[in-house]
Amino acid sequence: MAVYTQIGAEDMAALIAEFDVGQLVSAKGIAEGVSNSNWLLETTGSASAATRFILTMYEFRIDLDDLPYFLSLLDHLAAKGCPVPRTIHDRDGALYRMRGDKALALIEFLPGVSVSDPTPEQARSVGAALAQLHAAAADFTPTRANGMGLAEWQRLFDACGADGLAIIDPQLAGLVAEHLPRIAAAWPSDLPHSVIHADLFPDNVLMLGDKVTGLIDFYFACNDLTAYDVAVTHAAWCFDSSGQTFRADLSAALLEGYESVRPLLPEERAALPLLAQGAALRFTSTRAYDWLNTPADALVMRKDPMAFARRLQFYASNPDVFA
Amino acid sequence: MAVYTQIGAEDMAALIAEFDVGQLVSAKGIAEGVSNSNWLLETTGSASAATRFILTMYEFRIDLDDLPYFLSLLDHLAAKGCPVPRTIHDRDGALYRMRGDKALALIEFLPGVSVSDPTPEQARSVGAALAQLHAAAADFTPTRANGMGLAEWQRLFDACGADGLAIIDPQLAGLVAEHLPRIAAAWPSDLPHSVIHADLFPDNVLMLGDKVTGLIDFYFACNDLTAYDVAVTHAAWCFDSSGQTFRADLSAALLEGYESVRPLLPEERAALPLLAQGAALRFTSTRAYDWLNTPADALVMRKDPMAFARRLQFYASNPDVFA
Repeated sequence: MAVYTQIGAEDMAALIAEFDVGQLVSAKGIAEGVSNSNWLLETTGSASAATRFILTMYEFRIDLDDLPYFLSLLDHLAAKGCPVPRTIHDRDGALYRMRGDKALALIEFLPGVSVSDPTPEQARSVGAALAQLHAAAADFTPTRANGMGLAEWQRLFDACGADGLAIIDPQLAGLVAEHLPRIAAAWPSDLPHSVIHADLFPDNVLMLGDKVTGLIDFYFACNDLTAYDVAVTHAAWCFDSSGQTFRADLSAALLEGYESVRPLLPEERAALPLLAQGAALRFTSTRAYDWLNTPADALVMRKDPMAFARRLQFYASNPDVFA
Repeated sequence: MAVYTQIGAEDMAALIAEFDVGQLVSAKGIAEGVSNSNWLLETTGSASAATRFILTMYEFRIDLDDLPYFLSLLDHLAAKGCPVPRTIHDRDGALYRMRGDKALALIEFLPGVSVSDPTPEQARSVGAALAQLHAAAADFTPTRANGMGLAEWQRLFDACGADGLAIIDPQLAGLVAEHLPRIAAAWPSDLPHSVIHADLFPDNVLMLGDKVTGLIDFYFACNDLTAYDVAVTHAAWCFDSSGQTFRADLSAALLEGYESVRPLLPEERAALPLLAQGAALRFTSTRAYDWLNTPADALVMRKDPMAFARRLQFYASNPDVFA
C-alpha cells in the first residue's frame, strides 16, 4: 500500500501531456494498491470536462498481455452504465503507455468511500452492482482464464509447505488437507460462465451512503463461473469487521440485491455452499503464501490467512445459509 | 511516506462531521509525511465553498504543545496573503482534535506540484515567497525555540558515534570533527530573528509553472535567525537533482527573489557562508541519525546523509557564492 516509484513533477507533467486532459495541477501519491503505485491527479481538464484521475503504474505481478483485457473491460462496463472508472486513452488512442519497462494507465477518478462495516442496504446495493456487472459483460468478447483458480490454490499451499502453514497456525495444514481435495473433487464446471470481478471486497467498492459509486481494482477479473463471483463477494462482505461472525442480514441483503438484477439459477444457488468454501480457500491460500513470503521491509500490510480459514469452516458447517 | 493508521469510512465521516465542511465524498490516504499520516479528503462543501482538504494525523515526533504554534501560524500567514494552507477549525473553534492519543488537524488543500529540477524562475519565486513569509510573520506573537539547532546536531552526531558514522562513510566522522566545532564557535547570535520555516525543500513547496501556490509542512517552524532560513532554503534548492553540482543560476535567482521582498542586511549576507555550512550540517546530522536508526521495516525512505556532507564541503570551500 505505497508508492513504489517516484515520478517528479516535471516527468509527471510530460506524461500527462500525452493525454488530452489539460495541464497538471496536482499529483498526490496515494496509499492504495499492493502490486502497483497510484497517484491522484488533478488537471485543468479538457473537452471531456473531467479534471481528476487515477494514474496507475503496474509494478509487480501483472502480465502486460492482460492489461488490454482489464482496461477495455472498464470501458465496456462504463459504456453500459456500470459504476466503473473509464480508461482515459492517450492521444494515440492507446489504453496504456510504457515508461521504461513499466506500464501506466490513466483512469477516471470516482467519488465515494469504502465502507468497513456495511449495512444491509449497502450489501444489497453491492449485490445489485455485481449482477449488473455480470449482465453488462455478457457481450464483452475478450477472455482471460482465472489465474487464481483451484490449481493455483493447491500450488500456493504446496509452496507454503506443512512447516510454513504450521508457522501461521497449528490447524491450518489439517484444514487444507481436509477441505481442498473434497472441494476440488466436487467443483462444478457446468454452471454459467461470464466475466467475473473475482475480488470484490469492500476495499474495491466506493459508496456514497447506500449507493455504489465505483467498482474498482479489476486486476483479478477473468472468465469463470458467474456464481463463484457471488460466492467471493459473499465471503468478502457477510462477516462482521472482526471477520469472525457471520452476518445473516448482510447475506440475505447481498443475495436479494443480486437477484433483483439477475436471478440465480437453481443449480447456481445449490452450488453456492461449495463455491463459498472455494472462495474462502482461495483467499486463505494467497494470504498464507503472502504471510510467509512478504519481506519484512515490504511496504505492504500482511493480512491474516486464518480469517478466511475460519470462513471456510463456517461455510462447510453451514450450507443452509444459501438455502 | 505512508499512512500509519487506518481510519474506516464510517469513522472518517463521523470525524468530518465535527467540522463545517459538508459530507464526506472521498478519502484517499496519501504517501506524504514521515511522522504523520495524511489523507486527501473531498466533501460536499459548505458556506466556505472549499471541498478539498488534507487531514493530518500526528503519529510520532511531535510535541502536542507545539501544534497550536504550527497551526495558528498557518492561519496568520494565510490571512496576510502568504500561499499557505489555512487551518479548518472544528465546530468548537479548535485548531485540532484528539482521536485517542493522537492529534488530527484539517487544513486546506492547495493545488500545485513539487518540482524536482527547479528553473531559475522557480527559485526566484521561492526566494520571494520565503521573504514574504518572514515579513508576514513579523507580528506573529507565539514563539517556539528551534529544536533542530546546533546543540541538537551535536547530540545526533554523538548518538551516531564514530562507528556509526563510519558505516555511512569513512570520511564522515572526520568531516564532522573538522567543521562542527568551528561552525559552533563562529555561530552568530546578533542577527535579526523571526519565524522561520526551517525546512523549505522543494518537497515542501507547491508550484504551478513559476508561481508558488503553497508552502507546506511547517513542523520545523520556529523562531531563529532569519538568514539561517535563507541558508537552509539555499542548501535545499541550489544543487542539481543529483545533489552534487552547485547551480549558480539557481543561487542567484533565489537570493534575488528573496531580496526583491526583503533585502538582506550586510551582516546577514556576510554570515550566509557560515549559516549555509550550518544548514548543510543540520541535514547531515538528521539524515545520519535516521540512516542508522530507521528500522528495516519502516515505511520510510532513508535519505543519503552524504548529499549534505558534500554541500557542507562545498560551502566551506566557496564562501564567495554569497558575495
